Amino acid sequence: MTDALRIITSRDNPFVKHLRSLGHSAKARREAGETVLDGPHLVDAALSAGAHLSAVVVAEGARARGEIQGLLDRWAGPTTVLPDGLFAWVSPVETPSGILAIASLPSGSPPGGGDRVVLDRIQDAGNVGTILRTAAAAGVQTAVLTAGCAQAWSPKGLRAGMGAHFRLDIHELAEGEDVLVGFSGTVLATGMAADARGLYGWDLRGPVAWLLGSEGHGLAPELGARADGRVVIPMAAGIESLNVAAAAAVCLFEQVRQRQQG
Amino acid sequence: MTDALRIITSRDNPFVKHLRSLGHSAKARREAGETVLDGPHLVDAALSAGAHLSAVVVAEGARARGEIQGLLDRWAGPTTVLPDGLFAWVSPVETPSGILAIASLPSGSPPGGGDRVVLDRIQDAGNVGTILRTAAAAGVQTAVLTAGCAQAWSPKGLRAGMGAHFRLDIHELAEGEDVLVGFSGTVLATGMAADARGLYGWDLRGPVAWLLGSEGHGLAPELGARADGRVVIPMAAGIESLNVAAAAAVCLFEQVRQRQQG
Repeated sequence: MTDALRIITSRDNPFVKHLRSLGHSAKARREAGETVLDGPHLVDAALSAGAHLSAVVVAEGARARGEIQGLLDRWAGPTTVLPDGLFAWVSPVETPSGILAIASLPSGSPPGGGDRVVLDRIQDAGNVGTILRTAAAAGVQTAVLTAGCAQAWSPKGLRAGMGAHFRLDIHELAEGEDVLVGFSGTVLATGMAADARGLYGWDLRGPVAWLLGSEGHGLAPELGARADGRVVIPMAAGIESLNVAAAAAVCLFEQVRQRQQG
Repeated sequence: MTDALRIITSRDNPFVKHLRSLGHSAKARREAGETVLDGPHLVDAALSAGAHLSAVVVAEGARARGEIQGLLDRWAGPTTVLPDGLFAWVSPVETPSGILAIASLPSGSPPGGGDRVVLDRIQDAGNVGTILRTAAAAGVQTAVLTAGCAQAWSPKGLRAGMGAHFRLDIHELAEGEDVLVGFSGTVLATGMAADARGLYGWDLRGPVAWLLGSEGHGLAPELGARADGRVVIPMAAGIESLNVAAAAAVCLFEQVRQRQQG
């Protein structure tokens, strides 16, 4: 643990203003190439994954808690302490957890191999984060998000991801050819198209790129056109569809099952 | 279509006050035994399922829309019209959809046979609604919610359920023996217990009651003790768990797969 503690008490401090903007503005996150991680679970996940953190910030009243101390012991850089009221002001959540960190967004290295999820215009950050969490659990390596998606690295997306962000290669704002660059394997679109074949009829043991569209808009036609096939999850009569994160879970774990059972 | 139109313009009208309370208060819904359905999709689902509606309410500015007219054509009772501002005031959502209905909550008939999901202390109404939606899609007949769960019939739960509420036998506030009353089959608890066996090693072709606990608290011990076995979803190293609605989707559709493939 470092002893370098900095105490800031003013809302006018530039660092404090920056911290608050990262927690409250998608534009600020994109411009800075940084996001704010809220809570012990996310900070723990980032430290465990060796993610690049540029700052760790604790609330005065939470400093002595064992869980917070344990995280500070693992952090080699300087720590900033804020009075509880100021901490609550910068925090992106209603019930502040006592610890925040600033993390760099991943840089633009091209996506790698393995399995991939492609999220197309999924606007709910909770769904985006839940899909990332499920994808990491299913052993997927890469997530590509098109420009109409909610930000993966938003506070809500991070919270739903529960640390999965640090175990995936995430590419945002992808367009056109970029979506499938670096992928070799079968490209499968999910949805209700007339030519869709039931999920359980597919051989999913090789690498798959799963194209997941928004519930409102489906897949963009130019993206859907790049699929090798269309997959439908068989459902009870009278039910139209699943939540997109539930559908992703069913597809990704059918792949896990097939690989486990050979 | 009925021509019986009633126009109300005052916030002090008792019906208007009742409508607003149903959209904003869990206590008001429980006491009245009613809830409010927001939007054409839910009203459509309720009409299609023959659910008991006691009122349909439209916003003045939305009356002429084809989608709203189509619903009013299928509704045999009286319709109330509110000015747009008053409609927005009673509506439980930020962007009012132009149509609301009051629906009766299901009465207390004992749960029937078939498959069952048991939701234990799941506090997020979005997760509750998403699980109900997935359960209906997987052909489950009955959902039992323990007292610590978010209300299934809350506006947020209904929105996430996308009409599934009208295709399930839903029992709320269940305690103790009530949770499994009327069920005969295998009771399976999901979670990380040391004696859990991988999902894909279970024969799920017969009726199953799935016990799903909250992510924070897991299953209540007295409920977990009633399980015939514990199921774990195999996950990549370093990932602790799935979102509870994603986990439910994986389990319920593994059951669908086994039945489909014999």
